[in-house]
Amino acid sequence: MIDHPAFDVDDWCLIETELLRDRLAQTESVFALGNGHIGLRGNLDEGEPHGLPGTYLNGFYESRPLPYAEAGFGYPEAGQTVVNVTNGKLIRLLVDDEPFDVRYGRLIHHERVLDMRAGVLRRQVEWRSPGHRAIRVHSTRMVSLVQRAMIGIEYEVEVLDGRARVVLQSELVANEQLPVTIGDPRVAAAMERPLEPVEHLATGVRAYLAHCTRQSGLRMAAVMDHLLDAPQPWEVESEAYEDSARVTVIAELAPGQKLRVIKLVAYGWSGGRSVPALRDQTAAAIAAARHTGWEGMQAEQRAYLDEFWGRADVHIDGDPEIQQAVRFAVFQVLQAGARAEGRAIPAKGLTGPGYDGHAFWDSDSFVVPVLTYTLPAAAADALKWRHSMLPQARARAKQLGLNGAAFPWRTIAGEECSAYWPAGTAAFHVNADIADAVARFQQVAGNDDYAARFGTDLLVETARLWASLGAFDAQGEFRIDGVTGPDEYSAIADNNVYTNVMAKRNLLAAVGALRSAEKAGSSLVDRSRWSDVSDEELEYWQRAAEHMRVPYDTRLRVHPQADGFTDHAVWDFDDTDPSEYPLLLHFPYFDLYRKQVVKQADLVLALLRASHEFTDEDKQRDFEYYEALTVRDSSLSACIQAIIAAETGHLDLAYDYWGEAALMDLDDLEHNTRDGLHIASLAGSWMVAVYGFGGMRDTTGSLSFCPRLPGALRRLSFNLILRGIHLNVSVTAEEARYTCNGEAHIDLTHYGEDVRVGPGGTQVRAIPPVPARPRPRQPPGREPAQRGRRDSG
Amino acid sequence: MIDHPAFDVDDWCLIETELLRDRLAQTESVFALGNGHIGLRGNLDEGEPHGLPGTYLNGFYESRPLPYAEAGFGYPEAGQTVVNVTNGKLIRLLVDDEPFDVRYGRLIHHERVLDMRAGVLRRQVEWRSPGHRAIRVHSTRMVSLVQRAMIGIEYEVEVLDGRARVVLQSELVANEQLPVTIGDPRVAAAMERPLEPVEHLATGVRAYLAHCTRQSGLRMAAVMDHLLDAPQPWEVESEAYEDSARVTVIAELAPGQKLRVIKLVAYGWSGGRSVPALRDQTAAAIAAARHTGWEGMQAEQRAYLDEFWGRADVHIDGDPEIQQAVRFAVFQVLQAGARAEGRAIPAKGLTGPGYDGHAFWDSDSFVVPVLTYTLPAAAADALKWRHSMLPQARARAKQLGLNGAAFPWRTIAGEECSAYWPAGTAAFHVNADIADAVARFQQVAGNDDYAARFGTDLLVETARLWASLGAFDAQGEFRIDGVTGPDEYSAIADNNVYTNVMAKRNLLAAVGALRSAEKAGSSLVDRSRWSDVSDEELEYWQRAAEHMRVPYDTRLRVHPQADGFTDHAVWDFDDTDPSEYPLLLHFPYFDLYRKQVVKQADLVLALLRASHEFTDEDKQRDFEYYEALTVRDSSLSACIQAIIAAETGHLDLAYDYWGEAALMDLDDLEHNTRDGLHIASLAGSWMVAVYGFGGMRDTTGSLSFCPRLPGALRRLSFNLILRGIHLNVSVTAEEARYTCNGEAHIDLTHYGEDVRVGPGGTQVRAIPPVPARPRPRQPPGREPAQRGRRDSG
Repeated sequence: MIDHPAFDVDDWCLIETELLRDRLAQTESVFALGNGHIGLRGNLDEGEPHGLPGTYLNGFYESRPLPYAEAGFGYPEAGQTVVNVTNGKLIRLLVDDEPFDVRYGRLIHHERVLDMRAGVLRRQVEWRSPGHRAIRVHSTRMVSLVQRAMIGIEYEVEVLDGRARVVLQSELVANEQLPVTIGDPRVAAAMERPLEPVEHLATGVRAYLAHCTRQSGLRMAAVMDHLLDAPQPWEVESEAYEDSARVTVIAELAPGQKLRVIKLVAYGWSGGRSVPALRDQTAAAIAAARHTGWEGMQAEQRAYLDEFWGRADVHIDGDPEIQQAVRFAVFQVLQAGARAEGRAIPAKGLTGPGYDGHAFWDSDSFVVPVLTYTLPAAAADALKWRHSMLPQARARAKQLGLNGAAFPWRTIAGEECSAYWPAGTAAFHVNADIADAVARFQQVAGNDDYAARFGTDLLVETARLWASLGAFDAQGEFRIDGVTGPDEYSAIADNNVYTNVMAKRNLLAAVGALRSAEKAGSSLVDRSRWSDVSDEELEYWQRAAEHMRVPYDTRLRVHPQADGFTDHAVWDFDDTDPSEYPLLLHFPYFDLYRKQVVKQADLVLALLRASHEFTDEDKQRDFEYYEALTVRDSSLSACIQAIIAAETGHLDLAYDYWGEAALMDLDDLEHNTRDGLHIASLAGSWMVAVYGFGGMRDTTGSLSFCPRLPGALRRLSFNLILRGIHLNVSVTAEEARYTCNGEAHIDLTHYGEDVRVGPGGTQVRAIPPVPARPRPRQPPGREPAQRGRRDSG
Repeated sequence: MIDHPAFDVDDWCLIETELLRDRLAQTESVFALGNGHIGLRGNLDEGEPHGLPGTYLNGFYESRPLPYAEAGFGYPEAGQTVVNVTNGKLIRLLVDDEPFDVRYGRLIHHERVLDMRAGVLRRQVEWRSPGHRAIRVHSTRMVSLVQRAMIGIEYEVEVLDGRARVVLQSELVANEQLPVTIGDPRVAAAMERPLEPVEHLATGVRAYLAHCTRQSGLRMAAVMDHLLDAPQPWEVESEAYEDSARVTVIAELAPGQKLRVIKLVAYGWSGGRSVPALRDQTAAAIAAARHTGWEGMQAEQRAYLDEFWGRADVHIDGDPEIQQAVRFAVFQVLQAGARAEGRAIPAKGLTGPGYDGHAFWDSDSFVVPVLTYTLPAAAADALKWRHSMLPQARARAKQLGLNGAAFPWRTIAGEECSAYWPAGTAAFHVNADIADAVARFQQVAGNDDYAARFGTDLLVETARLWASLGAFDAQGEFRIDGVTGPDEYSAIADNNVYTNVMAKRNLLAAVGALRSAEKAGSSLVDRSRWSDVSDEELEYWQRAAEHMRVPYDTRLRVHPQADGFTDHAVWDFDDTDPSEYPLLLHFPYFDLYRKQVVKQADLVLALLRASHEFTDEDKQRDFEYYEALTVRDSSLSACIQAIIAAETGHLDLAYDYWGEAALMDLDDLEHNTRDGLHIASLAGSWMVAVYGFGGMRDTTGSLSFCPRLPGALRRLSFNLILRGIHLNVSVTAEEARYTCNGEAHIDLTHYGEDVRVGPGGTQVRAIPPVPARPRPRQPPGREPAQRGRRDSG
């Protein structure tokens, strides 16, 4: 997208200078607004043309039966699908009987700007109607980060070249007609009109619709209210029906006169609260927003973002495109997670219906780490969501004959929704990923009383899972057989290295948390909270961790991704046509699983997440080995490859991968941004800055840095919040500056050297030279796009 | 069932002496009649009560979409389901206004006899109506083995105790209402009324219905005609509607008078021929049957069976129950395969709708070997069916990125219908099983011109598959990764021993067939038929076979079922409740696959089918190892375990397993005989006699015998047809007698000693003693039932 001349590169804004009608669905995702609770796709105010209309409420879904031609024990019976809820962002306009529609008449100017400092989407249009009346429309759309239930739209229309009668219709529309989905017709049928009308009401400039779902039993309400400003005389009327409500404003405008409408919409939903309660809750939200006023809402949005950027910005000198892309990425992670507050952070955030609106391990493994360092309260909320799912996870473990908790591979409300178990249920690593996120949060963000409790609950229940999932073998090694690691081009393998080293970390974290709770006075929570965990159980966890099997191929001197992996035939890359990627759309799982071909970082992700388990030589050799096998048919890969490329000294390669991760959606690299943004890849582009070129590692209880920049960059600066204290790290080719903006010191290491940064102080350290290494090879045709010039390969 | 006092043990008949209403569905399967082309479940003549009405035509199916919640490349889109076609066996009776229904009035006597020499099902009923009129009904039902399209029923009613008006309604009924199927409602919906009416006609005592299917585009016709015999005056009328036709006979009977009806029904179906053609075809079949007459049809049926039993009987002294069960088994194999003639032999034959009427590897691996030695023409037909599926199998291989032919795991018409690929598509061994059946047929039954051509086509195309499926690894071994062997409690494993040794046999058989075709004059078919197979390709096959990987666990000194199998945790049998079998209904595949637990003989089947690849010590150790892991949740296991138990000297255990294999359906051991008979297990009970206690092996190009009997048996005698020559093998505890009933000699080995049996001659050899061995252990609670007393364990 950015490669299109209609897009300007700007530090803080994403600017589209003409309407790209053939990219509408993609730009709707990119221009989506959200706060983690409400998500609005960037549909045009007037609703049409559209790629895919979308309004989402986090956690609001419908259930549908999952069909199986051959069923099996433990297969989930019901799926969950995110619902496109009542559309509150619609504002239609009639100019002298002509509906304002960019497909007709003449579009003189169309500009959309996503302003990441103001937290709004602005739109400016000049349009000449088929009846030759020119108008200018200016709209500003916001999903409030401060008032969770609220969205606001400022809509201003001005007639440019003569008097005109304008009719503005501000609407709420439920059960919007969606483009026909390709694929299983039953899914579409079940979701065709997901909202059952419950109540509707219109009075003055206010209207209200309440609906419920049929199967999942959820209720939702949307209220809209308006502030109007127009030259007299103007009229207003309102009406409401089961699936739509409308406030209509009619005015006569002379040239230069403007009709200005502030539309405020409040959303509420609940599975437990009654419709009257929802009605009151949304009315209260509207009242509060009116009290704040539109200017006030904009001001508090700006203030919220000023504070956020102050602690979360990544500054890059030398590549304006990456600068913009990384800011966009951080902004979208914020929009996905800021106010999720006890709900999931789905793979697509709330930007589209992709993956049915499900949350996966991406949330814990990619998004939560970023939030942990930039918005710790949101990270805590995401982990609390996992904690609130413990009952379902315990029930699932029991169904599978296991102990502890087995978290779902994909879900909205906590139940497993994966209908293909080899890539779902078998991917048990999600449990260790959650534990990893907990351990990081407790270490980095501060282990307060509450975090110690819910975090340790999660550590204990996932440790129990691993203890029952694995077993000691005749050689005394602890094995975990028949599981699927992150790489979805392998499945049901024994001793997946990533899974095993993460399970080890999980077990040790649980042991550590409980051991520390035993120390009288030194802990926040008493060990007695986990009195059902015996000392024998704890010792078993310790022993399992210490004897965890990590297969190694002594012939090739690399780690096989799992037992036997390196014995398999290597995928025939030479005979694979470029059009045959992604491979999963052109080859059977059967063939992918049994060959050496990697969809996404798996062993390489282990090199990051369990960095201390591998020697530098391991990392060199493993990284190069897996580079030749990894096709990156997943958006979760490039960022991880960038990080390990940086660690192993392949800085230009790391830089190339950074571009891919950061531009995943802006350049629509996987051709599916239309279904929503790749939130994890966006989060990953932050991770490349911090873990990659910042060289940060956080898996051993302390924070270490080995920063190093690719030749193209002059400076990289990023910020971290560590137990409430802000650390700025600023890196150039020659040196790293560590600045502590807080009232306590921060201990870290720089290339192995202990560094203490005092309160308000700065420490500067030189960066050792990086030895040149030959650039590793990727499968033919799967090399990342190279970013600009560079010094050496 | 045989354990019920209502069942008599008889050498040649299966006799039920009272009607077991709670076992109706099971007895309908057991009393099913068929000829491989038409199958009739043993429903009562009057249709009700029933367990499951069933009339099947081999190959007549309906297509239905296969649903997937998460689809994948190469998943089959359509399933095929056998259709319950027009029921022609219905004869209802009214006795003075009271419908004859065994549920009302009083059932004085009810006997059903399956006569395996006559090839008919006889029924004798005495019944007193609710209106107190006593009648006797005698019926004889036949599916002709000689006239493939024909069934016949002789139905005779006699009033015992006074005059009565009887109304007999002989019917054709299409789209019978079936008991509601539990499970996916969509499947039931699709199959609710599978037959679309095309034509109907009634005239005189003849009526005709023609139907077609909606999706699969098949057409079928059924014609009934009648021969009547009743005291004057009697009347007859006939009528036909879209889905039913009826010939009604009304007569007044004095005590001792009889109404006798011969009902002849002809069936025809086709995908290609027109309705008029089918109409003529069935009319011609009726004309031929009328010409033969009912007595003539019975006589030719008897003659057919006399000839069959003369070459196929297994005679057992010392266990009448097993004697009956093995005869029943051989009879049902005959009924499944006799006249399949270019169609599949489904897993249930034509006795029920189980497994959707699909054919699996069972056909090639269990049924065809029996037919090869007893009814070679039917074996040839079964292999020709596979040959006729080559276009679909080649297309499937291509879709999977493989060469040659990939035969479907389950199918009716040749397309893959398995919706769960880890247990379907991945079970590539079906291809080697077909090749094994071909190689055996060519060796045993005679490699005539036609067999040489179609057989070698199959060998070549499957060899090509293996060559592309496997690959040489760095150690120079030929590996076959990521496949599923016969054991369905493991999947997607590397180098499954069974698969690999069978692939080796497949490759060598193909090489052998082509090399022999190269020898000028010595071969039936010229090598030029396979001119697209280069010498390099042949050499590659040879090299792959020679270097085929066969994993071995040097620590345990056993063969792992596949790479890594013996490293897995052993299933926790002690904590598995008896009610939790079959395990697949109570545990997820995930857990079954990653543990050492075996559903059915896999490695142990390799010990039979590739006997020469294993030493005696291998067999001893391997058998004992897998005995402790095998739960026999499949009906395909007991017979194979019996055979290897016999080979390894565990004769009493072999005898116990024989009972299980032979009584699978008579005792309803898996509680699903209602859905149809387990044809492969029945075939397996013949295999136990021949390969087990006869100790026959046929995998090295010559025939060897190591006969030995369990203590309970006095004598075992069986017959084999070898290139048209009949060999009788008669075994006692002390000696084996080999008698050649033919015009050429037969060469064989007896315990390694070469024996030539001259034309019409007999050779007698002593049987060496079998050293006693401790009885191997099975998983607790999964030991086979012990048959009677025995000498030692």
